[in-house]
Amino acid sequence: MSTPTALLTDRYELTMLDAALRDGTAARRCVFELFGRRLPGGRRFGVVAGTGRLLGLLRDFRFDEAEIAFLRDNGVVSRETIRYLEDYRFTGSITGYREGEIYFPGSPILTVEGTFAEAVILETLALSVLNHDSAVATAAARMSIAAGDRPLAEMGSRRAAERSAVAAARAAYIAGFSATSNLEAGRAWGVPTMGTAAHAWTLLHDTEEDAFRSQIASLGVNTTLLVDTYDIAQGVATAVAVAGTELGGVRLDSGDLPTVAASVRAQLDDLGATSTKITVTSDLDEFAIAALAASPVDSYGVGTSVVTGSGSPTAGMVYKLVARQANDGGWVSVAKASTSKASVGGRKTAFRLRDPHGVATAESIVVADGFEQSPAARDRADARALQVTLVEGGDIDVAHEGADGVAAARAHHLRVREELPVMALALSRADPALPTVYDVIDA
Amino acid sequence: MSTPTALLTDRYELTMLDAALRDGTAARRCVFELFGRRLPGGRRFGVVAGTGRLLGLLRDFRFDEAEIAFLRDNGVVSRETIRYLEDYRFTGSITGYREGEIYFPGSPILTVEGTFAEAVILETLALSVLNHDSAVATAAARMSIAAGDRPLAEMGSRRAAERSAVAAARAAYIAGFSATSNLEAGRAWGVPTMGTAAHAWTLLHDTEEDAFRSQIASLGVNTTLLVDTYDIAQGVATAVAVAGTELGGVRLDSGDLPTVAASVRAQLDDLGATSTKITVTSDLDEFAIAALAASPVDSYGVGTSVVTGSGSPTAGMVYKLVARQANDGGWVSVAKASTSKASVGGRKTAFRLRDPHGVATAESIVVADGFEQSPAARDRADARALQVTLVEGGDIDVAHEGADGVAAARAHHLRVREELPVMALALSRADPALPTVYDVIDA
Repeated sequence: MSTPTALLTDRYELTMLDAALRDGTAARRCVFELFGRRLPGGRRFGVVAGTGRLLGLLRDFRFDEAEIAFLRDNGVVSRETIRYLEDYRFTGSITGYREGEIYFPGSPILTVEGTFAEAVILETLALSVLNHDSAVATAAARMSIAAGDRPLAEMGSRRAAERSAVAAARAAYIAGFSATSNLEAGRAWGVPTMGTAAHAWTLLHDTEEDAFRSQIASLGVNTTLLVDTYDIAQGVATAVAVAGTELGGVRLDSGDLPTVAASVRAQLDDLGATSTKITVTSDLDEFAIAALAASPVDSYGVGTSVVTGSGSPTAGMVYKLVARQANDGGWVSVAKASTSKASVGGRKTAFRLRDPHGVATAESIVVADGFEQSPAARDRADARALQVTLVEGGDIDVAHEGADGVAAARAHHLRVREELPVMALALSRADPALPTVYDVIDA
Repeated sequence: MSTPTALLTDRYELTMLDAALRDGTAARRCVFELFGRRLPGGRRFGVVAGTGRLLGLLRDFRFDEAEIAFLRDNGVVSRETIRYLEDYRFTGSITGYREGEIYFPGSPILTVEGTFAEAVILETLALSVLNHDSAVATAAARMSIAAGDRPLAEMGSRRAAERSAVAAARAAYIAGFSATSNLEAGRAWGVPTMGTAAHAWTLLHDTEEDAFRSQIASLGVNTTLLVDTYDIAQGVATAVAVAGTELGGVRLDSGDLPTVAASVRAQLDDLGATSTKITVTSDLDEFAIAALAASPVDSYGVGTSVVTGSGSPTAGMVYKLVARQANDGGWVSVAKASTSKASVGGRKTAFRLRDPHGVATAESIVVADGFEQSPAARDRADARALQVTLVEGGDIDVAHEGADGVAAARAHHLRVREELPVMALALSRADPALPTVYDVIDA
C-alpha cells in the first residue's frame, strides 16, 4: 500500500476547509491557478517539471487511519470535517502545461477546478512538487544548453534531501541531462544511471595501481578511472599502464579544470590513449560548463548546482483562487489587491505565439471569466496551445505518469526548446525572453 | 511495511562494492567520516540536524524484491553481489555529534565503522540527510537568534519538495523555531503546527467581513485574521468590528513591513485592540527579521528562506574514508591529497574547549590512528566531549529517533548555543567563530 500524501499540507488549508464546511462555502465551485509571478534568478525562461510526479502523489492523497488520528487527537478540525476527509477523493479537473514545457511569468502552469473543499487542500502538495522540480529543471536546461553535444550526468544526490534527490535526478533528465548517479531515479523513473568509483576506492587499496587493476577486472577496460586521489599525472600514467590505450575514460574531480584537462589530454595522447575520454566533475555549474567549451573535455558530471537550482532552489510559484461561483450560480473572477503580489483573476487559456519561422514571440494568455475555455483556436501554425488535460472528473491521465511520462516530457522539452529565440539561450541575467500578453475577454 | 531506502544511493557505491567483493577488500575494516570542509555562506557556526532521521532511514536500508530486481535487470552488480545485498544489514558502529549540536569545519559529525562493504554504501543516504537538514537548521538558528524572544513559525513547505518540507520543518524546530505549518511534521515528529487562513479564504466569500465572521465562528475570537487581501486599513477596521477588541491577532503578508506594522499597531491601539498581536510573513529571512527588531511585531512566519537554507541550500558535507585495516591487521590512516579537497586521515575524537566562564574557545579534534578512541578525558569543565554512540554493532540507539529525539535535539541545541562567544551571533559573513585545532597522536 502506498504512503498517503494528504498531510503534506499546510494546516491552514484544513482550518479553511473546516470553516467552509460550517458556513456552506465549501461546495462553491472554484478555479485555482498555479503560476509564477516572475522567473527567479534573472532567468530568461523556466521549465515546468514535476507534473507527472504530482499526479502520482494526487492518487495517494487520502486520509487513512494515521492521518485521521493525528487531526482528531490534535483538534485540527471538527468531527464533521473528519468525516469529510475520511471519504476525500479529488473529483475535479486539472489542466496544465505539459511536463517539460517552457514557461514565463503568469503562465497558467496548472488550473485546478473543483469545489473549494476539494481544491483548496491541494495547494501545498502541488506547489511543493512544481516549485522544486521546476527549479531544478530550469537550472538543468541552462547547463544542457551550455554543454552543447557533450553528455551531462547528474550526481548531486548527496547535496539534496534523500527523496528530493530522486526528484532532482528526474527533473534534470527531463531538461536534457543524459544520466544520473541516483539508483532510485533509475528504478522509479527509468532515468539511465551511471558511476564507477570514488576516492575511497583508491584509498581502500594498498596502491592506486591495485585499485585500478581491480576496477578493470570488475567493470572492464571501458570503465572510467578516477585519477586525482594523489598526483594526477602519476594517476594518468598508472591508469594507462594498467588498462592499456583502450581505457574508456578518466575522471577529474579537482583542480583548475581547463588547465588540468588540457594537460591530461596531452598526456593521454602522448601515451597513445587517444580515444580515452575525459570527464570532469568538480563544482560545475552552467557558467563553469560554458567556460570549458574550448577545453578537451568529453562529458560533465554536475552535483550541487543542479540539485539546488544553481542559486534559485525554488521556482517561487503560487496557487491562487482566480474564479469562483457566486450565490446565483454565475462565475466571479477574484484577485488579491496587495501591493507587489497582485494576481490576475479569471480562468486562463495559454498559447505560445510564433513567427513565420516558428520562433516564439510571446506568451499569450486569454482570460475568460467563468468556467468555459476561451474560443481561441488551438494549435494554429502561429499559436501553439500550451495546456493539456491532466485530470478529468477525478480521473488521472496515466500517460503523464511513470517512466513513460518522463520520457515524453524529456522529448517534449527538447522539442519546444528549439522554438525559443536565440537570445533566450544566453546565461546572463535578463528579463524573460518572451513577453506575457494578457487578452481579457468579458463573459 | 516501511519503504526501503537502499536505492537512495549513488550507483558507484554498488560498483565499488561489486569490485571489492571480487578482490577481497570488501571485508577490510574501515572508518568513514562525515564532515564539512568549510561553513557555507560565510556562516560563523553550523548546526547538525538530520541525525535522528538518518537512523530511521538506516533501519529501512534493505534490498527488497523491487530493489534487487532493478539491480539485476540493469546489470548494475554481479550475482554474487546481489546475494550479499539480499542479506544486507549494517552491523557496524556509528558515533557522531548529537543532533542539534553546533559544528565547525572539520568537526567529525559522523564516524561510521564497519567493513568497507557495509560502510561504503551508506555514503549518499548519510550525506543527503545531514547536508539538507543541517543547511536548514543552520539558517534557522540565525533566524531564531535574530528574532530573540518573538516566536518564529516555519511555513515554507510550498517552496521545498514535498518530503524535504517535512524534514525542513523538523530541522527548523530543532534550531529554535516554535512551530510549523506542515501537518506531517506534526504527525511524524511532534512539531507543533499552526495556521488559520489564506487569501483564498477571503476571496471565496462575497465580502471580507463574511470571511472574517465565518473564521471567527469556526476558530474563535483568538484566531489570527489575514488583513491584506484588499486594503489593509480597511481590513483591520473590519477585523476589529467583527471580532471585537479581544481579537487574537492579525497577519500581514505584503508591503513594507516596518511601515505597515507601525501603522497597523497604531490603528489597533486606537480601536482599543491593544492586546491583538501582529504577525508578519512576507519574504522574511534573518536580515529582515533583524531589521524588524524595533517594529511592533509579535511573531514571524518564515517560508522560502528557511527551507532553502537562506542562500546556502546544502551544508556541503562529505563522507571520506579516513582509516582502514591493512593486510597485517594494523590500521592505516588514509587521506586524499587533491588540491583544495585534502582531508585529514585517522579516526577523530572531538571536544569543545571552554574558558573558565564556560564560553567556547576552540573545536579540539584529537586524531588517533586506528580504531581506538583517544585517551583524552571526556566532559571536563574545560572540554565538552561532542560525540555520542548512535549505532553499536548494528543496534540503533532509539533515544535519538522519533518525536522524543527531536525534542531532545531542540533542547540540546538551545543549551549549547549558549556556549558560543557573542561574536558568533552576528549575522554578517565572517570566518568560523571558533578555530578548529587538530592534535595528532601517533599510535
